[in-house]
Amino acid sequence: MTATAPTSTRPGRERTTRTLVDADIHPHALARDVAARLAPAHRRRWEMFGSRVPGPPEIYPRVRNAGFRVDAWPDGGFPGSDLGMVRDQLLDEFDVDHGILIPLQGHSWGVEAPEYAAALCGALNTWIREEWLDREPRLRSSIAVPHEAPDLAAAEIRRRAGDPGFVQVLLSTGTELSVGRRNYWPIFAAAAEAGLPIAAHTGGLAQHRSAGWPSFYLEEHVWNGNTMAALLMSFLLEGVFEEFPTLQLVLVEGGIAWAGPLLWALDQAWATLREDVPHLRRPPSEIVRERVWFTTQPIEEPDDPRHLELALRHLDMDDRILFASDYPHWDFDSPRHAPRAFPAAIRETVMGANACRLYGLPARDAG
Amino acid sequence: MTATAPTSTRPGRERTTRTLVDADIHPHALARDVAARLAPAHRRRWEMFGSRVPGPPEIYPRVRNAGFRVDAWPDGGFPGSDLGMVRDQLLDEFDVDHGILIPLQGHSWGVEAPEYAAALCGALNTWIREEWLDREPRLRSSIAVPHEAPDLAAAEIRRRAGDPGFVQVLLSTGTELSVGRRNYWPIFAAAAEAGLPIAAHTGGLAQHRSAGWPSFYLEEHVWNGNTMAALLMSFLLEGVFEEFPTLQLVLVEGGIAWAGPLLWALDQAWATLREDVPHLRRPPSEIVRERVWFTTQPIEEPDDPRHLELALRHLDMDDRILFASDYPHWDFDSPRHAPRAFPAAIRETVMGANACRLYGLPARDAG
Repeated sequence: MTATAPTSTRPGRERTTRTLVDADIHPHALARDVAARLAPAHRRRWEMFGSRVPGPPEIYPRVRNAGFRVDAWPDGGFPGSDLGMVRDQLLDEFDVDHGILIPLQGHSWGVEAPEYAAALCGALNTWIREEWLDREPRLRSSIAVPHEAPDLAAAEIRRRAGDPGFVQVLLSTGTELSVGRRNYWPIFAAAAEAGLPIAAHTGGLAQHRSAGWPSFYLEEHVWNGNTMAALLMSFLLEGVFEEFPTLQLVLVEGGIAWAGPLLWALDQAWATLREDVPHLRRPPSEIVRERVWFTTQPIEEPDDPRHLELALRHLDMDDRILFASDYPHWDFDSPRHAPRAFPAAIRETVMGANACRLYGLPARDAG
Repeated sequence: MTATAPTSTRPGRERTTRTLVDADIHPHALARDVAARLAPAHRRRWEMFGSRVPGPPEIYPRVRNAGFRVDAWPDGGFPGSDLGMVRDQLLDEFDVDHGILIPLQGHSWGVEAPEYAAALCGALNTWIREEWLDREPRLRSSIAVPHEAPDLAAAEIRRRAGDPGFVQVLLSTGTELSVGRRNYWPIFAAAAEAGLPIAAHTGGLAQHRSAGWPSFYLEEHVWNGNTMAALLMSFLLEGVFEEFPTLQLVLVEGGIAWAGPLLWALDQAWATLREDVPHLRRPPSEIVRERVWFTTQPIEEPDDPRHLELALRHLDMDDRILFASDYPHWDFDSPRHAPRAFPAAIRETVMGANACRLYGLPARDAG
């Protein structure tokens, strides 16, 4: 969101009559949180070598406060490392009913040496269970997985599948191979079997390789929509949705406005080139409207808000758009001000009802 | 080999007392050979789309006669498409006892859409069985596999494993991921189970990506040793040889002289950094000397032949070097002249005895 002056000084007041779900909150495990949950061999490696795959804070340490809100750094911690601060700045501040954790460190750790990657992601999930879900009933989480070792990723999904605190499987848009390829299918099979959606979140080491590593942070930031479009196309064209007929896919932090025109192009190409993808038996737009969800942050903001309204009408998926704040990142969208960017007709469902339906969460009684 | 004037006009005479095995002969299937062996759906695709992954002849159509000997083009065919010409120019001409086919088209086809890749490689193997092995008892072959879909590659290996005409599994050095990673282990598991070596042959679409796509053919040609060294390191460091304790690896068309110094560096690094690879429990050179084989073409040729002799002494693996002609490529090494490049003490074993031991082939009686 661009900056907007607050119009109310009474937190939460504007939204007491509707359910508020935040679909994109980033927790951050400190090195000691991870170490404490690793078996001795992996712990020794963690202490000697750490992770050789840097995340955005290491790649852009001086851009926009390493990517975080300036007020989100706890003493001796890191943005997202402290549940108390997340309560103060987000859950209580905006009277959030439910928040979905997305532990992005798994994007980097998931490409480490396979068994080590699995150990790190497992430690991250255990830390979330113990330090977040056990202590804060408003929260749910995504499962971090070692996505480049699909068999081990599937094992981690099965390990968490019985835990109702984990409501989806986290996938990076920066996979080493095209993400819909059968090489990754063990991940989708395990998610489908557990009845969990896949949440694809922007990022990961290899995310920009399709057109080379970007020179500028601005380039990377805006490019997120393109990597997400590539991910969606790969899921569609490799036949993932046909192979796993119950699988749902949530696209997180990749924008929305590009999707309508992409579906026009996909439907048109499918009509004339379907010999190339005989396994794709329906127009891609039909599949997307039954299987894909979008999140709002960062939503594309035109000078004239009617243009965004038109873009959303092109997409025609209002019942599959989820509000997301992206806390604690610098471009956080406030639940108080963000709704004004959306057309009035969809605010209620986008701010909460859609997410409740997807994740099976209770809606707030009308106040 | 650099050009050497023949000193005998009587083919085969120089080697009647020793066994001759050629470990690198390239057959080439014409489009109709493939089409005739595809199921209808894949055949329609083959006829409409062909392969979207070009091989070296398409990438360098004008360099060195598209990469082939000028005298190796049959009427209406392609170098390596005609068994009669291979007999005339190689098997009969040099009185070859055994020749190992390496169908390089699988390098390109193996990265097509997975099921299509599997169908193309399967058709190639069936063509080899029917048109080469059934007709020429001196020949054996490698199994072409869809290496980027390891589960389907393993299925193709199991399908051919009972056929004594197939003596190894062909792997490209141009895999999309580091080739030793567990993602490819289903291929190695199937090979080990069948008792077949893996033969890694230079080439494949992605072969030069580690330092970018090369600008020049000369660059690519000399670089082959580097990609092979990277492949060997990946096998060693990912723990492939520990995971599959009977697996043998043949390095084809990647040179030899680089290997000694690489083993010095690997042993030294292992001694000081082995915390990084706890699964590697022995000096890498020990593993290589028990599990790896090299082929001769194109062997590095210094101005002073004693320097090559010294390089081979550094490596100390004379009993694991196999003669290869690389027929019908432009830089073919003649079985008549090539031995002169090797130290006298190793000629006998390199020209045949080593390959007979590896592939379980009968040696010729001393004449």
